[in-house]
Amino acid sequence: MVPLPSAVVDEAMRIAVAVSESARGISTPNPPVGAVILDAEHRVVGTGATAAPGGPHAEVVALREAGAAAAGGTAVVTLEPCDHTGRTGPCTEALLAAGVARVVHALADPTPAASGGGETLTRAGVAVESGRLADEVARGPLRAWLHRQRTGRPHVTLKLASTLDGRIAAPDGTSRWITGPAARADVHAERARLDAIVVGTGTVLADDPALTARGDDGTLAARQPLRVVVGRRDLPTGLRVLDDSAPTRVVRDHDPHVVLAALDDVNDVLVEGGATLAAAFLDADLVDRLVVYLAPTVLGAGRSAVESTVVGTLADARRFRRESVTALGEDLRLDLVPAAAPSHPAAARTQQEQTCSPE
Amino acid sequence: MVPLPSAVVDEAMRIAVAVSESARGISTPNPPVGAVILDAEHRVVGTGATAAPGGPHAEVVALREAGAAAAGGTAVVTLEPCDHTGRTGPCTEALLAAGVARVVHALADPTPAASGGGETLTRAGVAVESGRLADEVARGPLRAWLHRQRTGRPHVTLKLASTLDGRIAAPDGTSRWITGPAARADVHAERARLDAIVVGTGTVLADDPALTARGDDGTLAARQPLRVVVGRRDLPTGLRVLDDSAPTRVVRDHDPHVVLAALDDVNDVLVEGGATLAAAFLDADLVDRLVVYLAPTVLGAGRSAVESTVVGTLADARRFRRESVTALGEDLRLDLVPAAAPSHPAAARTQQEQTCSPE
Ligand SMILES: NC(=O)c1ccc[n+]([C@@H]2O[C@H](COP(=O)([O-])OP(=O)(O)OC[C@H]3O[C@@H](n4cnc5c(N)ncnc54)[C@H](OP(=O)(O)O)[C@@H]3O)[C@@H](O)[C@H]2O)c1
Ligand SMILES: NC(=O)c1ccc[n+]([C@@H]2O[C@H](COP(=O)([O-])OP(=O)(O)OC[C@H]3O[C@@H](n4cnc5c(N)ncnc54)[C@H](OP(=O)(O)O)[C@@H]3O)[C@@H](O)[C@H]2O)c1
Repeated sequence: MVPLPSAVVDEAMRIAVAVSESARGISTPNPPVGAVILDAEHRVVGTGATAAPGGPHAEVVALREAGAAAAGGTAVVTLEPCDHTGRTGPCTEALLAAGVARVVHALADPTPAASGGGETLTRAGVAVESGRLADEVARGPLRAWLHRQRTGRPHVTLKLASTLDGRIAAPDGTSRWITGPAARADVHAERARLDAIVVGTGTVLADDPALTARGDDGTLAARQPLRVVVGRRDLPTGLRVLDDSAPTRVVRDHDPHVVLAALDDVNDVLVEGGATLAAAFLDADLVDRLVVYLAPTVLGAGRSAVESTVVGTLADARRFRRESVTALGEDLRLDLVPAAAPSHPAAARTQQEQTCSPE
Repeated sequence: MVPLPSAVVDEAMRIAVAVSESARGISTPNPPVGAVILDAEHRVVGTGATAAPGGPHAEVVALREAGAAAAGGTAVVTLEPCDHTGRTGPCTEALLAAGVARVVHALADPTPAASGGGETLTRAGVAVESGRLADEVARGPLRAWLHRQRTGRPHVTLKLASTLDGRIAAPDGTSRWITGPAARADVHAERARLDAIVVGTGTVLADDPALTARGDDGTLAARQPLRVVVGRRDLPTGLRVLDDSAPTRVVRDHDPHVVLAALDDVNDVLVEGGATLAAAFLDADLVDRLVVYLAPTVLGAGRSAVESTVVGTLADARRFRRESVTALGEDLRLDLVPAAAPSHPAAARTQQEQTCSPE
């Protein structure tokens, strides 16, 4: 075999991740996998992402595109190729039939039914490498699916969109035109790739939002996430969230655990507010990622983005760790994940040296 | 003369800006100017910043370091060299005596008494260029002094340090350990370069802050800004803000215009809170720069960073424009300046397309 430079494999893996973004939302409950086929000279000859349930897996899509060029080549896949026959045949079989000489995957398949693909391929004489860019891939499109496998519940992203002083509505209830068009487009693009959007009855009754994924011109995206409304109050007919542009589920309970249990068919959930529901998920420690859209404005009065009834002192604050900061027009988008509790005495000491108010 | 490459002049101007940072706070009421002397072969042979009042100006400090090497060389200065005899002789005279062949400055001197330096130098046969990196220099250490010349009042920076949901204190009043050590060190470094720190009686009575500039080990910085307390309540003796580690002024009034009028001897003012005083300066449209330290935490209850009694609807929000985003350990520092009101109909239309809450 011609030696395969490490940088070429990394590049192929990043292409596989980018390609798999298109499978988000589509592939559920299957993982949104991405695959790239390199020919024997290491040129990209095929790419693929998981199709909707019943359709082909990423490897098969990529192999079809590659055709005969796959023989003696390399398959670079974000997840270990499956070894079982579900609605489709095992990917290991397809890879062997195509004569692929090498398989590189980022993450081992954690599901008992589908795992073992690497072993099967090795036994058949294929060179198999596991773990390539594993951390990077785990933060990408597979994130929610992996979370479901690990914890048995959906991955929860909490979205907050506020002014610099954390307001989401003025005293008179006006709440629109806080963030700008770029942030809004970003929210709609995100919705189109999610399994479900969750809001409280307060938001639905105050704003009558459609909660659909729409393009810049207002047209509905091809795929719509499930709309979920949480609360006990009755919802008057005629509300936009009850129209037929997307499915809607009402959960008449206040416990976020019950809400997630009612979402056993989805993996990737966005909690969009309002302040009461956001607090309930934070207080229950059920936020896996926080996305904050920050407008460059100060309001100085009105509703805050999170309103908890149980938080009393500063030690109750939830700590996060910054993953990224992105400029969206005039606004900023901050992505954060929960910070691990300071377990080490030195970490605890550092925290005590921190201060905020003038001293 | 050997041709002087533009990039060399820009580089020298940036050095002059960096050097002048050390004059901030020190030079008041004089402008914190920076100067770099290049010899005839364009090598840096001297740098200088304005000394305390009565001491030499930047050009003179830089010329002394350059000595004979200044002859036939270039002086690069952030502000037009002065042409008048105050407590020191005119800089134009010093530059001519040193035999400098060329003077490049970023900004023309706006004060009637000191201006005209460029003309004097030109008449004496020196090649004078004005306007080099003018915008960049105007945002640097000269910012507050320029603001005072233009508006007749000090430049006001409002500092907010809050959680992601805009909180500065928990319901029980605890307010420390919100931002981390890097943000705290940044605040202290900033204080050491400012003329005055302004807080409300609420903050002083709640937290008893010292409001001094201190190093990591708690030692007082060589120079301390004026401490200003705003409000009508009596301050009990024994408060740290009344100790002799720095001068303190009490302004028994609620009108931010009156506060600034009482600060006619300073140019660079930092309003550090609390929520009531911050709102008063915003509502009076007296904030020239906003610095937000954002901790990666969500509190969910307690005091917000700005609490206005006059804001009613979203249109009352103050709009800013992002100047920079800086990571300080786990925290972010955002620097913003007031956004110009949308004057163009197209700009107004774009604003109406903006949204924040789910739709
Ligand atoms: N800028 C943004 O990103 C954004 C996003 C969303 C909303 N908003 C604004 O937020 C405001 C609405 O906030 P909100 O707090 O009233 O609405 P909310 O959080 O959407 O809904 C509150 C309701 O949720 C139900 N609920 C679910 N779990 C609960 C729990 N654990 N504890 C208590 N109640 C629970 C209750 O409904 P029942 O009483 O029916 O049981 C409660 O009244 C609106 O002004 C909206 O414009 C802004
Ligand atoms: N995280 C941070 O960056 C930060 C910074 C500062 C403070 N804090 C926290 O903020 C809290 C204090 O906030 P606060 O709002 O009570 O304090 P504040 O804004 O410091 O002081 C309020 C007082 O300022 C006076 N005042 C001045 N101008 C006024 C105006 N235009 N209108 C009304 N009053 C005016 C009044 O004093 P009189 O009644 O005496 O006339 C008023 O009671 C504390 O918990 C502190 O820990 C946090």
